[in-house]
Amino acid sequence: MNRAGFYAIEGVDGCGKSGMVGYLVDLLRGRGQEVIATREPGGTPQGEAIRALILSGQDDAWDPHSELLLMTAARVEHVRRVITPALARGAAVVSDRYVGSTIAYQGAGRGMAEDLIRGLHRDVVGDVWPDLTIILDLDPEIGLARSRNRLSASAIDEGRFETLDLAFHRRIRQSFLDQATRDPARHIVVDASGTPDDVRARVASALAGTTGAIA
Amino acid sequence: MNRAGFYAIEGVDGCGKSGMVGYLVDLLRGRGQEVIATREPGGTPQGEAIRALILSGQDDAWDPHSELLLMTAARVEHVRRVITPALARGAAVVSDRYVGSTIAYQGAGRGMAEDLIRGLHRDVVGDVWPDLTIILDLDPEIGLARSRNRLSASAIDEGRFETLDLAFHRRIRQSFLDQATRDPARHIVVDASGTPDDVRARVASALAGTTGAIA
Ligand SMILES: Nc1ncnc2c1ncn2[C@@H]1O[C@H](COP(=O)(O)OP(=O)(O)O)[C@@H](O)[C@H]1O
Ligand SMILES: Nc1ncnc2c1ncn2[C@@H]1O[C@H](COP(=O)(O)OP(=O)(O)O)[C@@H](O)[C@H]1O
Ligand SMILES: [Mg+2]
Ligand SMILES: [Mg+2]
Repeated sequence: MNRAGFYAIEGVDGCGKSGMVGYLVDLLRGRGQEVIATREPGGTPQGEAIRALILSGQDDAWDPHSELLLMTAARVEHVRRVITPALARGAAVVSDRYVGSTIAYQGAGRGMAEDLIRGLHRDVVGDVWPDLTIILDLDPEIGLARSRNRLSASAIDEGRFETLDLAFHRRIRQSFLDQATRDPARHIVVDASGTPDDVRARVASALAGTTGAIA
Repeated sequence: MNRAGFYAIEGVDGCGKSGMVGYLVDLLRGRGQEVIATREPGGTPQGEAIRALILSGQDDAWDPHSELLLMTAARVEHVRRVITPALARGAAVVSDRYVGSTIAYQGAGRGMAEDLIRGLHRDVVGDVWPDLTIILDLDPEIGLARSRNRLSASAIDEGRFETLDLAFHRRIRQSFLDQATRDPARHIVVDASGTPDDVRARVASALAGTTGAIA
């Protein structure tokens, strides 16, 4: 299999993931690759139905354990129906969030043991990890301010995590940095402050600096 | 805590569980106990939302792993918000299905390893098991015939499991019998053939025959 690469974009709310997906897709298409853009939770009709359950409502709408199970169920569908088939036919995959977000939000954020999250991933999703995760690193205070503008526009029903306190979002940011430190070969951390153009330039240069088949 | 008892009713589709819940509730109320009747998947608004996802659609609507995660997420909510609080205040709980159904349907039926199901239960639900599980044992061919009558009436959108083949439902029946054999102190198996009155009389006599605090 001529594997084209599985990319995940991660970071706190409002760091610019969704915008960066489009940029990365263009970049890869520019190399003549087939690329699919997808997101979590979601990416399949099943996953989008779970997304609607989990991102709406009050903070206490779900126990942290069921939140973990729902996120993982959406990921099972996403991997089986979208990600694995796309990689198998040689397409690149760019996903707005993946299991790194579960480690950050349900682990560092909600306090679920990271071993439980990784064990569940291994048992039900399988050994499917991104070749490269791009972490858009940003002070969550700035990210939440960006998100609030966006929330007032369209995604008003998806704000369940955005409403949590700053301490929660600081744990999320730190978890992403820790994930990168632990597995540097598969992560790049990019400063996501400044203008969108600034951040895209940093991503392009970080990608140019990675070695190996993926970048 | 003066624990009044956590009862689960299990068995193949159409064996008469839902009807039997009402009978057991009346029996326990007749002893002056507070009793709550509940069901799985469901029993909470969160669980009912998951139920709507999982019991409708085609057989291949969900991967077996996500089916397992969704069932277990509904159970987490059910245990935390309904079952444990009810038992803590001294009420009895009668549930139409519980984790025995997950062992039967997602385990024996779908082929998920029983260790995975029990490990997940331990990790995310906790050590919450019924004091007594009543298994209404019935040839699934008879049960499915009974269910088809019911389906044509009201629950037409909840037939995802009923549409599976007889071999699937025979594995379900056998799994319930195996669960009883493995843990006889906490299970009774009742022949569920014949009229509803016949079955109720058998349940009453089996309960009279159990020793200890529960029956
Ligand atoms: N570098 C940036 N500076 C200012 N605003 C930005 C920047 N990047 C994205 N935004 C805006 O911030 C909001 C959140 O960006 P988005 O891509 O949706 O972030 P995420 O998907 O990480 O939550 C959007 O309104 C977006 O247009
Ligand atoms: N012993 C019985 N004989 C014939 N029909 C029955 C009997 N018990 C239940 N039924 C009917 O069979 C259908 C399925 O019963 P139900 O209690 O809903 O089963 P379950 O909840 O186990 O699927 C219902 O229409 C019910 O009225
Ligand atoms: Mg986004
Ligand atoms: Mg029923």
